[in-house]
Amino acid sequence: MSERSDFIEACWGRPVSRTPVWIMRQAGRYLPQYREVRAGVSFLDLCRNPELAAKVTLQPVDILGVDAAILFSDILMPVESMGVGLDFSPGPVLEKPVATAADIATLRVPCVEEELSFVFDAVRILRAELNGRVPLIGFCGAPFTLACYMVEGQGSKDFSRVKQMMFSAPDLFASLMEKITETNRRYLNAQIDAGVQAVQIFDTWGGLLAPADYETFIQPFTAKLIAGLNRAKVPVILFVKGGGTMLDLVKQAGADVVGLDWHIPLDRARDVLGTKVAVQGNLDPSVLFGPTTVIEKAVRRILGENDGRPGHIFNLGHGILPETPVDHVRFLVDRVHALT
Amino acid sequence: MSERSDFIEACWGRPVSRTPVWIMRQAGRYLPQYREVRAGVSFLDLCRNPELAAKVTLQPVDILGVDAAILFSDILMPVESMGVGLDFSPGPVLEKPVATAADIATLRVPCVEEELSFVFDAVRILRAELNGRVPLIGFCGAPFTLACYMVEGQGSKDFSRVKQMMFSAPDLFASLMEKITETNRRYLNAQIDAGVQAVQIFDTWGGLLAPADYETFIQPFTAKLIAGLNRAKVPVILFVKGGGTMLDLVKQAGADVVGLDWHIPLDRARDVLGTKVAVQGNLDPSVLFGPTTVIEKAVRRILGENDGRPGHIFNLGHGILPETPVDHVRFLVDRVHALT
Repeated sequence: MSERSDFIEACWGRPVSRTPVWIMRQAGRYLPQYREVRAGVSFLDLCRNPELAAKVTLQPVDILGVDAAILFSDILMPVESMGVGLDFSPGPVLEKPVATAADIATLRVPCVEEELSFVFDAVRILRAELNGRVPLIGFCGAPFTLACYMVEGQGSKDFSRVKQMMFSAPDLFASLMEKITETNRRYLNAQIDAGVQAVQIFDTWGGLLAPADYETFIQPFTAKLIAGLNRAKVPVILFVKGGGTMLDLVKQAGADVVGLDWHIPLDRARDVLGTKVAVQGNLDPSVLFGPTTVIEKAVRRILGENDGRPGHIFNLGHGILPETPVDHVRFLVDRVHALT
Repeated sequence: MSERSDFIEACWGRPVSRTPVWIMRQAGRYLPQYREVRAGVSFLDLCRNPELAAKVTLQPVDILGVDAAILFSDILMPVESMGVGLDFSPGPVLEKPVATAADIATLRVPCVEEELSFVFDAVRILRAELNGRVPLIGFCGAPFTLACYMVEGQGSKDFSRVKQMMFSAPDLFASLMEKITETNRRYLNAQIDAGVQAVQIFDTWGGLLAPADYETFIQPFTAKLIAGLNRAKVPVILFVKGGGTMLDLVKQAGADVVGLDWHIPLDRARDVLGTKVAVQGNLDPSVLFGPTTVIEKAVRRILGENDGRPGHIFNLGHGILPETPVDHVRFLVDRVHALT
């Protein structure tokens, strides 16, 4: 970084000039400029093309004025390299979901540097193009969320198949989690080597579990992933969607920043998390459909709940919805900056 | 009731001989006997046939030995009578979803006694057939959950359309909620008149909202519904799926029993709710896929979290999943009884 970044400072819990803000899934379908790029290329081909991935990564930085860029990619890219096949139609579909010990035994821990070189090429392009303007965030899926897709083969309402494996064959489940954890440890470290300045771990489905089961079956793998990162200079953000009732356990996984969905008031979350962990969040994405008066009120409420404590990165509580008006997102970013 | 019921006593927070247990969606597809009935009749026709609805209502009482029967029906039955049309294929599909002020103006508050007479006939048949064996629970959907279906026209991943109406046209949204609330107040009171001995209000989607928005837009209508019930002798259970981070607000809606999903440990929930409210829950339904050792461990954990406090009804944290082995459900019921 050529200069001090509010985003990175906030991740470390240090004072900032104004509250930094970025938007989960900020490079996405709600942006006409993104849809223009996507008109000519499939989602997977866009992920695999470093120049185009870099291009859409930069769009929200230019259009919205957010305080961080996040690499355009998908959490399933390293999973594909493990050998399960991957397509999008439009949601993810794995060609070879895993069910048996033999399935898991054939999964590879890939040489990510070679097989996902397009990701690290995109990172290098982005660092050059950003030239210190804002930091670049890398990411991966949490082991459980990836296991969900690998066992179910696609999205699911209740992911009962993966939970069935977890409860009825815990050793088998653990062997799968182990391979995913090691793959993603290497994958995130390679992103860090290539130049990302923070990393976020997305546990989209971790909140499907009872706290006791999260603690037994899931959290040790997330903690192992985090502990295995070259993170001296790179803050780690852990986002567990639906984690509001088990923030004590999420915190113990060891991230520097805990991402929050909108189901828990920010002040209560901070009370549980204590002063040594920063927080990121937590506006309901659908508030952005409301008029600007509603958005302003919600921004003021969340900033009020934080009450000036250091270590707050403003964000949505989940990915931005495709139909969101771009004007409203720009309004949000401006108001967060103006009010802090 | 011919004799004292542990279920009703637990609803009132009074001592019981052993912890009562029933299963949300206990009359359903996981039972071969239910599938046999359904083979000859559509879901809607089953709901509308008092004899058949009573028959499947009784199945889990006979097969599982649960401590309460819950009327077989669907939360959308009164909504259909409001004039939106209804089909199942297999999820609910409304023929005329509401979007505008004109749509809402044309909605009727139906004369439930006439238009839903099949429901009350089923209640009367069931009270006679049960003959005091176990109490009969009636139910309805919470105003917000019904508004979700009425605006979206079907299930949805994030119900952004109804939230858009809530945020951008709060008066319009309130007028819809008002009509639903009055319809369901009449509907539940008619169930009580017909003989149900407890009622449950299902707010399947209330947990989609931030606590502040739940408090502003939703909870007043749930509270109004509850306050308008003839409930002197009939306990009211309120279940807000995903409500674990806002149990203080759920409690203030005024129910006698708060239903809990599995995302919050029972002891923490009781700490928030205090001693004047009973609780119902809260086993993760997918635990029933596990071996009996896993089920036993989870039952012991939940009973341990309750720690002998009066006012606990054991249940799942959401509806039972269709592929659940019946033997495992019977094991669960037996263990809850044996361990308390």
